[in-house]
Amino acid sequence: MKGVRVIDMTSVLSGPFCTWLLSTLGADVIKVESPGGDSARGTPPFKEEVSLYFASLNRNKRSLALDLKTEDGKAALHKLLASADVLIENMRPGVRDRLGCSDSDLKRINPALVVASISGFGQDGSLANRPAYDIVVQAMSGMMSINGPLDGEPTRVGFSVGDIAAGLFAAVGILERLYRRDAQNESTIDKLDVSMLACQWACMENAYARYLNAGIVAKPLGSRHPSATPFEVYPTADRDIVIAIGGAHDWFRLCGALNLESLAHDERFFEDSVRIAHRDSLYELLSDRLRQESSDHWIRQLTDVSIPCSRIENVETVANSEMVEEYLAFSEVEAAQHGSMRFVRSPVANPNHRETAAPKLGEHNHEILGELGYSAEQITERFTP
Amino acid sequence: MKGVRVIDMTSVLSGPFCTWLLSTLGADVIKVESPGGDSARGTPPFKEEVSLYFASLNRNKRSLALDLKTEDGKAALHKLLASADVLIENMRPGVRDRLGCSDSDLKRINPALVVASISGFGQDGSLANRPAYDIVVQAMSGMMSINGPLDGEPTRVGFSVGDIAAGLFAAVGILERLYRRDAQNESTIDKLDVSMLACQWACMENAYARYLNAGIVAKPLGSRHPSATPFEVYPTADRDIVIAIGGAHDWFRLCGALNLESLAHDERFFEDSVRIAHRDSLYELLSDRLRQESSDHWIRQLTDVSIPCSRIENVETVANSEMVEEYLAFSEVEAAQHGSMRFVRSPVANPNHRETAAPKLGEHNHEILGELGYSAEQITERFTP
Repeated sequence: MKGVRVIDMTSVLSGPFCTWLLSTLGADVIKVESPGGDSARGTPPFKEEVSLYFASLNRNKRSLALDLKTEDGKAALHKLLASADVLIENMRPGVRDRLGCSDSDLKRINPALVVASISGFGQDGSLANRPAYDIVVQAMSGMMSINGPLDGEPTRVGFSVGDIAAGLFAAVGILERLYRRDAQNESTIDKLDVSMLACQWACMENAYARYLNAGIVAKPLGSRHPSATPFEVYPTADRDIVIAIGGAHDWFRLCGALNLESLAHDERFFEDSVRIAHRDSLYELLSDRLRQESSDHWIRQLTDVSIPCSRIENVETVANSEMVEEYLAFSEVEAAQHGSMRFVRSPVANPNHRETAAPKLGEHNHEILGELGYSAEQITERFTP
Repeated sequence: MKGVRVIDMTSVLSGPFCTWLLSTLGADVIKVESPGGDSARGTPPFKEEVSLYFASLNRNKRSLALDLKTEDGKAALHKLLASADVLIENMRPGVRDRLGCSDSDLKRINPALVVASISGFGQDGSLANRPAYDIVVQAMSGMMSINGPLDGEPTRVGFSVGDIAAGLFAAVGILERLYRRDAQNESTIDKLDVSMLACQWACMENAYARYLNAGIVAKPLGSRHPSATPFEVYPTADRDIVIAIGGAHDWFRLCGALNLESLAHDERFFEDSVRIAHRDSLYELLSDRLRQESSDHWIRQLTDVSIPCSRIENVETVANSEMVEEYLAFSEVEAAQHGSMRFVRSPVANPNHRETAAPKLGEHNHEILGELGYSAEQITERFTP
């Protein structure tokens, strides 16, 4: 994406995640911030006064602080937009109009600009003005209702799936529109209107397929899968492990590895579609056997016969495992003011791509405004944050 | 994406989700299946013998059943690949080599082909041959360790985030490579090697940022947010609701709406970064107040002052709400053999895009092989599934 310029008027999580991803693919991302900066700059915890939350999401970007309530600020933004390929924003619907970026402003400034908005509930409609945070969208979409302990309460998904999913879908939509514009020479590209709500529904496509076409209301299932078993957490002599099988071909090998050949042809468990109806009794039978040996023993046995299984790792055990080095899990960024920091690497970028630290507020005002043709004097006079 | 042909040698979930998404953007997706078909065709529940799991994920695709163990099958696949823009597969690493699609085969057949693979742990390395299902990747990545009840056990995220996230990242990577190839005229496009593991890590970017740079080990937090409060589930006189605030600006309005002005300037709660340390006591104070009125009352009060909040919906309450029609949540597909079905709509496609039903196994053999230049006679003789 080298040479593709993205003007990033997003804050907090959904938009910044999207533009971080694009930046790892080479896009030139300019983060336009108000004089107060992205509110995520204030999200704890901090390392030498830098928010880790902010620092992870805003790698590889340049920061331009502009007061868009002033005419100078608006004029600079317009020059910037004229030089850009993409505008992305996740403000409350209607807010960008007041900042000099209404549809008609944009059409005048840069008719070929790809315009993407992320919001809780889309740009139009009765919910458009409702504020949305991740947990609200998780609750309103039904996402929480399918997550949580078996027979327990709906529980927020432990990462911000409302935002992250919206950021990912937005990246897909932006890239598709750029493709149509630049590879297929389409002249009118429709705006991209990503609603967090619709993205959650898409992530829940299976739960909705089951309700809409078979009347099944999904509920929290703990670690179980709605339509496959064994596919959950099991005890061992020491700690829990997960075991998952894909169907009949795995079933027989699993029974063999556990020395439970008698179960293999048991009519309650033999067929995939029947086994699921007997999963409570199967769970007990397998657990009794698994408790007889250690997790290490079982992981070895099961891996040997290609049955999918794993210990249940956490951020600490992963970060201290051999996987990290072998799979280049993390990337290190250097920042003069706060030493080096490590973050997760982009899963679709070239692993050798070097990342740069998140910018200080307005760190690139001189550089970017200079590129736009402002003199050093003008910049100091009009744009000092 | 009209005119972009995607050869889809994926099965089950991650790959099919990716290609469904591309299909909703207009790509011509040809699903190449073995004579036995995608195993997801056997996943319950069924509607008139069609798996709902399969039917949701394989909308808008054409099915070509080929026996890739025969020379005829391989030759037809090669012709197809020569006509294509993208190949995507999610077989165990190494398997595609045996099906006539090794890197050198592909280079010979179609040097400009964008090649994408999804796997549990990437194409190379010590884990490459380990089989992976969603729950295994959720366990091994640490994802389960940050999901579940407060102070409770690690719990699988209730939708298949291991697969869905990989499908989304793969779509991003494919579109970016198509863009470089067709808009930027890059002649050598690197293979896309998407590992489900790395995609989970990317979704957990915040949890890893906190561990790697501040030593914090994330744990299941129920519905709480790791660094913001109020941002969780609260009781009311009838049923639970979620309330979330973004910082100081919301805090005062929240206190006002709850008639808890005394809390607003309480030094335990006044500052965002201090409030988080007192969230247990804050939870009790807010809950006591919220229990005095109904959920409807509070949703109204809070929405009036723009505090993000929601009831906790499920697939049934969503599907029967007014949101569905207003937000075009679902799309209906017609299939001669099993009437109409409804599924979640693509959040980035044109809402007026009509979807078509998932194909029967080999449904488009005649059509596709005919396009490749085989005569009706040859097709019947050599390619009858």
